[in-house]
Amino acid sequence: MADGRTGGGAAPVWLAGIEEPADLRRVPRERLGEVAEELRAYLVEIGAEVGGHFAGSLGTVELCVGLHFVFDTPRDRLVFDVGHQAYGHKVLTGRRDALRHVKKAHGPSGFLRRSESPHDAFGAGHAGTSISAALGMAEAARRSGSGARAVAVIGDGAATAGMSFEALNHAGHLGTSVKIVFNDNGMSIAPNVGGLSRARSPRRYFETLGLRVIGPVDGHDLQELLPGLEVLRDARGPAVLHVRTRKGRGFAPAEADPFGWHATAPFCRETFARRTVAAPPSWTARFAETLGRVAARDPRVVAITAAMPDGTGLDVFARQHPGRTYDVGIAEQHAVTFAAGLATEGFRPVCAIYSSFLQRAFDQVVHDVALQGLPVTFALDRAGLVGPDGPTHHGGLDLAYLRAVPNLVVAAPRDENELQHLLATAVESGRPFAIRFPRGAAPGVALDPDPKPLEIGRGELLREGGDVALLGLGKTVATALSAADLLAEHGIAATVVDARFVKPLDAALVAAVARRTTGVVTIEDHAAHGGFGSAVLECLASHAPGTPALVIGLPDAFVEHAEVAEQWRLAGIDAESVAVRTRRWLGETK
Amino acid sequence: MADGRTGGGAAPVWLAGIEEPADLRRVPRERLGEVAEELRAYLVEIGAEVGGHFAGSLGTVELCVGLHFVFDTPRDRLVFDVGHQAYGHKVLTGRRDALRHVKKAHGPSGFLRRSESPHDAFGAGHAGTSISAALGMAEAARRSGSGARAVAVIGDGAATAGMSFEALNHAGHLGTSVKIVFNDNGMSIAPNVGGLSRARSPRRYFETLGLRVIGPVDGHDLQELLPGLEVLRDARGPAVLHVRTRKGRGFAPAEADPFGWHATAPFCRETFARRTVAAPPSWTARFAETLGRVAARDPRVVAITAAMPDGTGLDVFARQHPGRTYDVGIAEQHAVTFAAGLATEGFRPVCAIYSSFLQRAFDQVVHDVALQGLPVTFALDRAGLVGPDGPTHHGGLDLAYLRAVPNLVVAAPRDENELQHLLATAVESGRPFAIRFPRGAAPGVALDPDPKPLEIGRGELLREGGDVALLGLGKTVATALSAADLLAEHGIAATVVDARFVKPLDAALVAAVARRTTGVVTIEDHAAHGGFGSAVLECLASHAPGTPALVIGLPDAFVEHAEVAEQWRLAGIDAESVAVRTRRWLGETK
Repeated sequence: MADGRTGGGAAPVWLAGIEEPADLRRVPRERLGEVAEELRAYLVEIGAEVGGHFAGSLGTVELCVGLHFVFDTPRDRLVFDVGHQAYGHKVLTGRRDALRHVKKAHGPSGFLRRSESPHDAFGAGHAGTSISAALGMAEAARRSGSGARAVAVIGDGAATAGMSFEALNHAGHLGTSVKIVFNDNGMSIAPNVGGLSRARSPRRYFETLGLRVIGPVDGHDLQELLPGLEVLRDARGPAVLHVRTRKGRGFAPAEADPFGWHATAPFCRETFARRTVAAPPSWTARFAETLGRVAARDPRVVAITAAMPDGTGLDVFARQHPGRTYDVGIAEQHAVTFAAGLATEGFRPVCAIYSSFLQRAFDQVVHDVALQGLPVTFALDRAGLVGPDGPTHHGGLDLAYLRAVPNLVVAAPRDENELQHLLATAVESGRPFAIRFPRGAAPGVALDPDPKPLEIGRGELLREGGDVALLGLGKTVATALSAADLLAEHGIAATVVDARFVKPLDAALVAAVARRTTGVVTIEDHAAHGGFGSAVLECLASHAPGTPALVIGLPDAFVEHAEVAEQWRLAGIDAESVAVRTRRWLGETK
Repeated sequence: MADGRTGGGAAPVWLAGIEEPADLRRVPRERLGEVAEELRAYLVEIGAEVGGHFAGSLGTVELCVGLHFVFDTPRDRLVFDVGHQAYGHKVLTGRRDALRHVKKAHGPSGFLRRSESPHDAFGAGHAGTSISAALGMAEAARRSGSGARAVAVIGDGAATAGMSFEALNHAGHLGTSVKIVFNDNGMSIAPNVGGLSRARSPRRYFETLGLRVIGPVDGHDLQELLPGLEVLRDARGPAVLHVRTRKGRGFAPAEADPFGWHATAPFCRETFARRTVAAPPSWTARFAETLGRVAARDPRVVAITAAMPDGTGLDVFARQHPGRTYDVGIAEQHAVTFAAGLATEGFRPVCAIYSSFLQRAFDQVVHDVALQGLPVTFALDRAGLVGPDGPTHHGGLDLAYLRAVPNLVVAAPRDENELQHLLATAVESGRPFAIRFPRGAAPGVALDPDPKPLEIGRGELLREGGDVALLGLGKTVATALSAADLLAEHGIAATVVDARFVKPLDAALVAAVARRTTGVVTIEDHAAHGGFGSAVLECLASHAPGTPALVIGLPDAFVEHAEVAEQWRLAGIDAESVAVRTRRWLGETK
C-alpha cells in the first residue's frame, strides 16, 4: 500500500507499496517526486543487474508516474509506442520484482504485451503504431459511450514513421478525443533524422494536421508535467501534450551517451563498466566489414538504414566510407523506394534492414524494386529467431513473403565468408537481391582475400551419405552438419547440402540428392509454412516426384522471448531435435 | 514537328506535330495554351473511345504541357505518383496514337512504366512513392554531378500516404534539390480525408518539414503555372510548387462529378452516356451487400477503407449503415492498426483493402493484429489477376505473405454464397481472418437467406473420380470443375475439391483424396511459389507422403495488362490449360 511508508533516508519507501496504479494515485501529489526518484534509482539498479532498454526508460520516469497518477488506468488506455521507454510503466503496474527477469524466458517482455498485463493496452515492438491503436480505442469509446480515454505515448523518433503521420491525419479529420503524449527527446535510437526534427517545430506540425497542442512542458518537472497531463486528460478533440525529456535522465553516463546506453548489458554501478562476454565477431560486424570491402572497389555502392546505423553495422561502414550512408529515419518504406530511385540512376544501393522491419516495406520491395527489376540489395539482419527481443522482432517470415516475388533473388550465407561472396554477387548482379543472416556471432571462419561473385542459383554439396539428405540454408547448414554427425552415431549416413539460394533454388542439386537418398529433410530458422522447405517441396514435386520429405522449421506460432539457443530447442530446429525428428521420420517412412 | 502547323480553326494542329517533348519545347510560349486545348480535346476523345483514368488526367493537362516545356525531359526526371493523371504526359511523349489502346494487351499501361518509355522515369500504380523515388534520383544526380533534375508530381490524396511524409521528412533533412509539384485538387479518388486536407494549409505542412513552398498557382492558367515551374526548376534545396487544379477540368460532366469520372467506361461525347455491359453483380457488390447483412445483426461490425469506398463497395455499405464506415485516407498501415485498436475494445472491424494494397500493411497485419490475436477481418478484393490495371494491381502474393503468419485464418470463397458464409464465419470467429476474392463478376448464385458460420479449416468435396484430384480455391474451384468436364471427355475421372481454407488447410480431406487418386493437381490465381499449391505440398508431405502433385499457379513473372480471361490463358490457369497440363502430367507420372 502506498501509505505503508515506513522509513526515511534514501531507501525505497513508496515504490515498495505500489502494486498497481491505484496505489500510486493514493500518494499525496507533493510526494510524487519521491516516487519518481525511487523509480529512477530502481531502474538503474535493474539496469546494472540485468541490462535492457535503459536510457529511454530513464527519460520517462516522471512521465510514467504522471500518466498513472492523472489517468484512470487501466480503464483509461495507455499505449506506449515501441515499448523501449516503458520499464517504469511496468514497475508501476505490478511488475516491479518481475522486471529483474526482463527479456528472460518466462520473465516480462522487453516491450509491451497485452497478454502480460491489463495495463499493456496494446502490444508494441515496432515503431509508430501507438497513435493508430489509441485512435481506434478512442473511437471505440466514443461509439460505446464508455467514457474511457486513450493515450498514445510516442517519441519524436517514432513520429518519423509514416504510419504515425497517417494516424495523425486521420485523427485531425475524425475529431475524436485521442490523447497523444509527444515525448520529445531529440532521439530515436540514434540521433533523429528529418526536417521535422531539425525545424524543432512540432507544434506547427501537429496543428497543421488539425490537432490541439499543449505545452511544451518539462517532462522531468512534475510541477509542469502534471498540470499538462491534466489539460490533456480534459481536452475535447484530438490533442497533443508536448513533453521535453532527456534520454538517460538522472544517470550520468546515459545522459552523456544516450545512444550508447539505449540498450545495455549489465554494468557496475560504481565504475559503469559493462559486463561484456568475449565473442567472435557478430554477423552484423562481418556484414559491415564486407560491405566496406565491396564498396571500396565499387563506387556505385551506397548504404541505407532506417534509423538503425548501429544495429545494422552501417555506423562502422559510414566511418570507413564517409558520405556513402543514408539514415532516412524510422521510415522503411521510404528507405526502399529511395534506394530504387538511386538504382535507376546507376547506383547499387544496399538497404540494411532487419528482417522483421522489412515487413514494413514489403509493398515497396514488390512495386518499386522487383517489378522494375532495379538493382537494390536487401541485407536482412536478424533473420530467424532473435532471442530476448521476442516475437515482434523475429525474422521468421522473410522467405515466405520474398520468395513469391518475381525477379527477386533470395539467398542466405552459412558463414561470413559466404556472406561476403553473396554481397559481391548481389551488387554485381544488377538484380533485386535479398540476403538474410541471423542475429548473433558469426561462425568465425576466415575470409577469402576478396569477395567474389557466386553463381546465382547454385547450392553446394557438403557431405555425402545414402540414407537421407539434410538440406540447410544459412545458419541451419551448421545444424545439418551437426545433425549428420549425430545420425552417423546411429548408423545413418546423411548427405548435407548448403542450398544457399531459396530463389532460384538449385533444382538440379536438390533432385540429384533426392534420387540418391531415401528422403529429403529441410531445416530452416523460418516458418515451416511457405519458406525454404516449401520451396524444396515445390522443386521435388516437379523434379523428383514421390520423394518423401520432412520440413523442419518454426512452428505455426509466435515464439516467446528467451535466449536464441533455447528458442531453437523449443522450436525443434537445433541439431539434436533435427537428428531425433529425422530418425523418427525415417522409421515411419521406411 | 511543332512548326509543321498547317491549318486553323479547332482542328488539332500542334499536337499532331509533337512526337516528343523537344517538339513541344519548340512551340512558342504564347501558343502553349492552344496545345493544352488540343490535348484536352484529345483526351476527351480518347476517353469517349476507350475509357480509362480520365478525370485526373483532364486536371493535369496544363501541368503536363508546362512540365515538359520547362524541364529538359527526359534528362530531367519526371516521376508521376500513381499515374492516374499521366495520360497527357503519355500523349506528349510519343504515345499519342498508342493511347487509343491504353490498358489493352500490347497497348500502353494505364500507369507509368519504365519499360514503356524513357520518359517514364519511375513506374507507378500504388500511391505515395513519387517523392521517395525522385529524392533518390536527385541525390544520385548530386553525387554524380550530372545536373539532371528530379521532379515528383503528387496529388494531395497520395500525400496522405505515410511514405510521402517519410520522404518529405528525409528531403528536409538532406537538403537535396528535389522538386515536388503538389497537385492540389482536394481529391484522391474519393474526396480527400484528413486533418491536412481540412486545414487547407499545405504550405505550413511542407515548411514545417523544411521544404520551401512556391505558389499556390492556378494549374489551369499557364501565365501563372509556367513562371511557377520555372522558379521550381531553378530552386536550390528541396522545394514544392503548390498547384491548384480541378479534377475533370474542361469536361463538364467530370467537373461536376470527378469521383464518378475518376475512371470511366467509353462514353458518348454528345450525351455523356457511358457504355455499360449488362453483367451479373460483381464480387465487390456482393461483398458490400453481405457485409450489410452481417452488420445488421451484429452491432460490433464496423468497416474500414483506405480511400477506396467505391472500389471496395463500402460506399454502398455506408449508405445502408451510416456512421459505421471509416475512410482513413490512402493509409493502409494506419487502417489496419486503427482496426486493431477498435478490436481491442470489443468491435469486429472489417478492413476492405485490395489484395495488392494490403502489401502496404503487411507488418501491421503481423505485428498489430495476428501477434495479438485480435478479431480483425481482412476482405481482400482484387485478389489474383486484375486485368487492365496490370502488374502493379494484381493480388497474386497474398496467400504467400499471409499463410506464414501464425494465428491468421486465410480463406477464399468459390461463389458469393460462400463469401457471405465466410464473412459471417470471420466476424463471429473472434480471430484474425483474411478472405480473398477476385475482381469482376461473381458467379451469380443465389444467396442463402442468412449468412451462417462455416467450420474453420473444412473444405468441401464437390465431385469424385478415381484418376486425379483437382483442388481449387476461390475462383479456381470453377476452373477445376470445368477442367474435370474436359478431362472426362478424355476418359479421365477427376475428383474436385473446394479447399476454401488455405490456413488451416483441410488436411484430412486433402490426404483422403490423395489416397483415392493417382495424384493431386492444385489450381490457384496466385503465384505458384508459396501459395495454395505449396500449402497442399506441405500437407501431402506430412499426411500422404509420396503423392505425385502438380502445382498450377501464376508463373514467376509479373503478368502484363490485358483482359482477365486473356491473362488466365497466358498464365495457363484457365480450364483448358489446366486440363491439358493435367493430361500431360498424368501421362508423365503414370
